[in-house]
Amino acid sequence: MFGAEIPIIQGPMLGASTPAMAIAASTAGAIGAIGAAGLAPAALGQTIGEIREAVGDKPFIVNLFVLDPAAPDPAEVSRAMAALAPWRAELGLPEQAIPNKWAEDFAAQFAVLVETAPPVASFTFGILSAEQCARLKARGTRVVGTATTLAEARAWAAIGADAICASGFESGGHRGTFLRPVEESLVGTLSLVSAVRAQLGLPVIAAGGIADGASIAAVLALGAEAAQMGTAFLLAEESAVSAPWRAALAGQDCDSSRLTRAFSGRYARGIENRFMREMAGAEIPVYPIQNALTQELRAAAARAGRADMLSLWAGQGVHALRPGRTADLITAYWAQARATLADTAARFA
Amino acid sequence: MFGAEIPIIQGPMLGASTPAMAIAASTAGAIGAIGAAGLAPAALGQTIGEIREAVGDKPFIVNLFVLDPAAPDPAEVSRAMAALAPWRAELGLPEQAIPNKWAEDFAAQFAVLVETAPPVASFTFGILSAEQCARLKARGTRVVGTATTLAEARAWAAIGADAICASGFESGGHRGTFLRPVEESLVGTLSLVSAVRAQLGLPVIAAGGIADGASIAAVLALGAEAAQMGTAFLLAEESAVSAPWRAALAGQDCDSSRLTRAFSGRYARGIENRFMREMAGAEIPVYPIQNALTQELRAAAARAGRADMLSLWAGQGVHALRPGRTADLITAYWAQARATLADTAARFA
Repeated sequence: MFGAEIPIIQGPMLGASTPAMAIAASTAGAIGAIGAAGLAPAALGQTIGEIREAVGDKPFIVNLFVLDPAAPDPAEVSRAMAALAPWRAELGLPEQAIPNKWAEDFAAQFAVLVETAPPVASFTFGILSAEQCARLKARGTRVVGTATTLAEARAWAAIGADAICASGFESGGHRGTFLRPVEESLVGTLSLVSAVRAQLGLPVIAAGGIADGASIAAVLALGAEAAQMGTAFLLAEESAVSAPWRAALAGQDCDSSRLTRAFSGRYARGIENRFMREMAGAEIPVYPIQNALTQELRAAAARAGRADMLSLWAGQGVHALRPGRTADLITAYWAQARATLADTAARFA
Repeated sequence: MFGAEIPIIQGPMLGASTPAMAIAASTAGAIGAIGAAGLAPAALGQTIGEIREAVGDKPFIVNLFVLDPAAPDPAEVSRAMAALAPWRAELGLPEQAIPNKWAEDFAAQFAVLVETAPPVASFTFGILSAEQCARLKARGTRVVGTATTLAEARAWAAIGADAICASGFESGGHRGTFLRPVEESLVGTLSLVSAVRAQLGLPVIAAGGIADGASIAAVLALGAEAAQMGTAFLLAEESAVSAPWRAALAGQDCDSSRLTRAFSGRYARGIENRFMREMAGAEIPVYPIQNALTQELRAAAARAGRADMLSLWAGQGVHALRPGRTADLITAYWAQARATLADTAARFA
C-alpha cells in the first residue's frame, strides 16, 4: 500500500507516537505515521520536513483532526473547571487559568499540508470538503479518510478520498466518528472492514483490535490493503507513553478498556481508571474544550506517577502488547502474519 | 472441529433457526445447531432424536439458555404490561393476560440433555456448575460455553468446558453475557477471539460479524477452530424468519443494528425500528419476564406484516446476507473461505 513493502501502518497516536517511531516504521518497510493534530503550523512543517529527510522516498502518513474553531461557552467552562478543581488539588496544582488556546487551528495546519505535500495525509473527527481533498491530491498527497461507520466511509468516498481507514469499535484512543453520535457509530472491525470493502470501490485500511501477526493475517484475508496498529506500538522504545501509563498497560486484556468522554470531551477508549469512573456523572464540555482543560492535570498526573487520573488510551488488543524497537516489532509482526497465512491456507487447502 | 469436515457452525437462533436447518448444515459437512431454549423437555428430547436420526453420526449442537426460575415482581409486571398496552391496541390484540409460564425450566431441559446425550451442547446467558459439565462430558457430550468477555471464557475453562464460543460485540440476537453488565461486556470479535486463544488453552469458536467466506478465512487465520454464523443463514430456505423480518433485512448494513432490551429484557442486537426507539425510556423487566410479555405482540406483528414492532435480530455482518438452501450457502461460504486463504497467502508469500 502506498508503495510500502510491508502492509502495516503504525497508527498515528497523539501523545504516544513520535516522529522517531514514524521514521523507524517507514524505514523498516512499513508505513509510519505522526499524530500531528497538536502541532502548531510551523512545528508541523518542520516535523514533516524532518521525517521526509530521514525516510527519503518511503511513504509516511501525517494525521490531523478536522476541527472547527472552538466556541466555548463561559458558563460551561466554569462548571467544567469546578469539576476538575478537586483533582487538581489532589495533585497540588494551583487554581486553573482559562487556556489561551483550545486547539491548533486546522485551517492553518491544512495550509502547511498543502505546502509541504507529505506522501499521505489521514484525517479524523471530521471530513474535508471535495475542494480540500482535490487540493491535496493535486500536490501528490494521498488522502485517507477515517470512518467508524459505513456511512462515514461513503462520505469520504463521495469527496474523493484515495482510501478509507475503517476504524472499528475495538480501537484505542479517540473515536474518529463525525456523522452521528458515537453511541450509534459502534461497529466492530470485522464487520466494518467487510462492509466498506463490499460496498465501496476504495482500498481499505483496517484498524481496531489488530494486536499481533495473526490479527494482521485476519484483516488481510478480510480484504484490507493494510493493517493499522496503534496499541501494538505503545510499548515501543520510540513511544512517548509515560511511565505510569506503561505500567498500567501490563496484564490488561480485551475486557479492560471503556469508552469515555471524561478526559477530552470526545469518546475515546482507554483502560478503566478512577478518573473515568468518578467523572462519569459530570457535565463535560465537548472536544477540544475538556481536552484543553485537562491537559495540565494529565501532564501532572504522569509526572506524579498517578495512573488513576491519567488517560490510559489502549485498544481491545492490549493483551498482545510487547516492548521492543519499532523496527523489530514490525519485522516480528509481519513474519508472524505471513507464517499464519501460509499455515492457515495449508491447513484448509 | 467436533469431527466435522467443514469448520462452519450454523449458529443457534431461537425463533430463526430450525431443526431442518440444523439437519441441512450437519448433512452438508458443517455443524448444525438448534436454539432449543424455547422447547419444553418432551419436545426437546423429541427434536434431538429427530436430528440424530437424520444426520447419523455427524455432529450437531443443542443450545440452551442457563436460567434461574423467573421471579417476577407483580407491580413490575403490571407496569410493563401497561407500557405494552398501546402497542397491543394498535394491533387489535385483547387486554393482556399474565402468562402462565415465563420460560421453560432449565433444570428439566438439562435432565433431557443428559439423558439424550447429543454430540455437542452449547450454553448462553449463564454458566453450568463443574458438576453439570462433568455429567454431560461423562455422557460423551462436548460442552461449549458462550463468552462475551475474556473473564467469561476463563469461567467456562474453570468449570471444564471443552471449547469456548467467543461471541463478539457484532453478533446478532441476544448477548450471552453473564458475569458483568452488558455495557461492560462489549468486546469485538477480533479482540475476543485473539485474547481467548492467547490466554486459554481451549479451542475457540468465533462468532459475531462473520458474514461471508472472507470473514470465515479471517477468523481461521486468527486461530479460531470454527466460524459460527447466524445472521448469514437468516434468509436460508430452512429459516423460520417471518416475512416482514425478511423484508426488513434487505439493504441493511453494519450501521443498521442496535443493542436493545425493549423486546426481551436482555440486550440483543437487531435492526433499529420504532419499537426499539419508542420503548427506550420505558421501565423494562429482566429476561424472561419482558420476553414472555412481548411474545404475543411480536407474533401478531409478524402476522400483520408490521416490522416496526417486531424484533428484527441481525448482526453487523447483515450486508452480506443472501438467500438459498442452507447446504448451498455452506458450500459457497466454505469455497470462498478456502479460496480467500489460498489467494491471500499467495499474495503475501
